Amino acid sequence: MIRVAINGYGNLGRGAEQAVSQNEDMELVVVFTRRDPATVATQGAPVVHVDEMAAWQEKVDVCLNCGGSATDLEEQGPAAVAYFNTVDSFDTHAKIPGYFAAVDAAARAAGHVALVSTGWDPGLFSMLRVLGEAVLPQGRTTTFWGPGVSQGHSDALRRIDGVLDAKQYTLPVPATVAAVKNGEDVELTTRSMHTRDCYVVAAEGADRARIEAEIKAMPNYFADYDTTVTFVSAQELADRHAGIPHGGTVIRRGQTSGEVAATIGFELSLGSNPEFTGSVVAAMGRAVARKAAQGQTGAVTVFDVTLSELSPHSPAELRARYL
Amino acid sequence: MIRVAINGYGNLGRGAEQAVSQNEDMELVVVFTRRDPATVATQGAPVVHVDEMAAWQEKVDVCLNCGGSATDLEEQGPAAVAYFNTVDSFDTHAKIPGYFAAVDAAARAAGHVALVSTGWDPGLFSMLRVLGEAVLPQGRTTTFWGPGVSQGHSDALRRIDGVLDAKQYTLPVPATVAAVKNGEDVELTTRSMHTRDCYVVAAEGADRARIEAEIKAMPNYFADYDTTVTFVSAQELADRHAGIPHGGTVIRRGQTSGEVAATIGFELSLGSNPEFTGSVVAAMGRAVARKAAQGQTGAVTVFDVTLSELSPHSPAELRARYL
Repeated sequence: MIRVAINGYGNLGRGAEQAVSQNEDMELVVVFTRRDPATVATQGAPVVHVDEMAAWQEKVDVCLNCGGSATDLEEQGPAAVAYFNTVDSFDTHAKIPGYFAAVDAAARAAGHVALVSTGWDPGLFSMLRVLGEAVLPQGRTTTFWGPGVSQGHSDALRRIDGVLDAKQYTLPVPATVAAVKNGEDVELTTRSMHTRDCYVVAAEGADRARIEAEIKAMPNYFADYDTTVTFVSAQELADRHAGIPHGGTVIRRGQTSGEVAATIGFELSLGSNPEFTGSVVAAMGRAVARKAAQGQTGAVTVFDVTLSELSPHSPAELRARYL
Repeated sequence: MIRVAINGYGNLGRGAEQAVSQNEDMELVVVFTRRDPATVATQGAPVVHVDEMAAWQEKVDVCLNCGGSATDLEEQGPAAVAYFNTVDSFDTHAKIPGYFAAVDAAARAAGHVALVSTGWDPGLFSMLRVLGEAVLPQGRTTTFWGPGVSQGHSDALRRIDGVLDAKQYTLPVPATVAAVKNGEDVELTTRSMHTRDCYVVAAEGADRARIEAEIKAMPNYFADYDTTVTFVSAQELADRHAGIPHGGTVIRRGQTSGEVAATIGFELSLGSNPEFTGSVVAAMGRAVARKAAQGQTGAVTVFDVTLSELSPHSPAELRARYL
C-alpha cells in the first residue's frame, strides 16, 4: 500500500481524498491543515496541524500538496518536500521554472522526489502537447478551454456594484474547434476561440442594463469576447449552477508528408474540476512513490513519468492487456 | 544527430523515411532491404541488403524495423537487435508477450534497447488507455476504430468471385460514440459500434446482386455489421479511394465521486495510416537512442517511455514552454 498524506483540505484536497479512496493500492493516512484540526472533518483520515508534519515523516510515502498556487504552494512546496515525497498542482505558468528550481533544491537536500505542476492543465494537456509535437513535428497545437467554470471571472462579476452572486462559464466556439480539427485556415483570436456566459444574481432594484453593460465592457475579462449575460434568481443559481465543471481540448494538426495531414485530439469533459485534478494528482502520487523507492531524488514533472509508473498494473500485465 | 536506419522499405518504411526527414535531430543513414538493393529507390539514403547489416553496427543509433507483423517481424525483431537498438510496430496482439520475451533476450545479450509494438494501436491508443485508467480507476474504456481503410477486409472482398478490386472502410457509429462519451447506458455490440462500407469494382457481366449478398453474409468479416456495398468503376476507385486513411477514438469514462463523471477522449484522424505509424515509430526511435545512451538494455514498450525522452526539446525548455 502507498501511504498518502493530503496537505490542505479545500476543494482540491477533498477531490484528492476521493481519488485516493478509489485506488486500491493507496491509503490516506493523514490530512494536514493550517486550520484548527478539530474544525476539519475528513471522510475518516486523522487531521493534524501542518506544524506537526515532521512527526509523520516515516509514516507517509507521498504527500499531495493541495494548496492554491497564488500563495500557498510557493511556501508549501519547498517546505513539505523537506519531510516527504510530494506532488502538487502549481499552475502560475510564468513562475513554474523558478518554482521547479526551488522545489528541486529542497528535494535534493532532503533526498526526496517532488512532482510539480500536475493536474489537467498544466498536467495532462501538457503531456498531450509534447506527445503531439513529438509525433507530428510539422504542425500547429491549439488548446480550447471549457465548457467550464472560470473562478477568476466569476469573482470579477461579483465585484460589480449591484451583483450579489454570479457564475461564469467559458465555452469553446464549436465551429472554430471543428475548423482547427479539419486543418482549415481559420483565424484564431480571443473572440473566435471562446465565448463567455455569465449567470448573475442582481440585487433588488439594481439597474440590470448598467450591470450588463459594465460586464461586457470589462477589459481583459469580457470586452474581447462575445459575452452573454443572463440574470437569474439566487435559487436558480444554487439549483442549476452549483457545480464546478470544466474541460477542454488540445488539438495537434500536422502534415505527415506534402498535403497528407493528421489530427491528434485530446478532450476532457469534467463534472468536477477539483475532483478530476485530485484524480490526476493521486495517480502522479503513485509514480512519485515508485520513483522514490528506486532511489530517485529531486523535482520532476509529468514529462519525466512513464505510464508504467502511473499504472497500478505490473509491466507484464500492461503488455498483455493494454497493447 | 540521431543516426537512423530503416529496415524494410514498404509503405511503413517510406512513412518512417518521411517522418525522419521532418525531425531536425535525426538523419536517415541507411535503408535495409531483402530485395535487390539496385531495385529500391529511396529519397536519398543508401540501400543495403539485410545480410549486410553487421557492417553498419557502429554507424547507426537506432534501427526502425518496418516489416509486417504477420511474418517479417517475428524474425526481424530478434535478428536486428543483435546489431542495433530497434523500434518496431509488432501488432499481433496475442503474440505480444512472447515476442517481447524473445526480443528482450536478444537485446540483453547484445546490450541493446528494443522498443516493441508501437504505432497508434498498439502504441498511442495503448498509452491513452493506461493513462485513462490510472486517472479514472472507476470507469470503462471503449475504443472505436475508423473512419479508415481495413486492409484485411479489403483483401477479403477481392477474393470474391467476380470482384476485380475493392476497398473497405470501417466507420464508428457516431450515435454510439456520442452515447459512450456522455456515459449513457448504451449496449456495445459489434453492430452498434461500427459499420462497414465497401467500394467494389465488379467484372463485366458479373452478378452484382450475388456479390453484394455474398459480402453481406461473410462470417466474421461482414455478417455481424451493417454493411453497405457500392459498385464503382476502376477509375473511380483509383480517383477517390486511393488513400490509406485511418483513425479512431479511445474514450475513458469514469466517476470521480458518486454521480460526478469525467470523460477523457483521445481521437486520431489520419490521412495516411502508414505515414502516421512511421511518425510514431520515428519519435520512439529518439526515446530508444536516449535510453541506449544512458546504458539501458532490453526490450521496452510505450509504457516505459517518458515524454521528455520522446521530445526533441530539453527538460528545461519543456517546463518553460509546455506546462
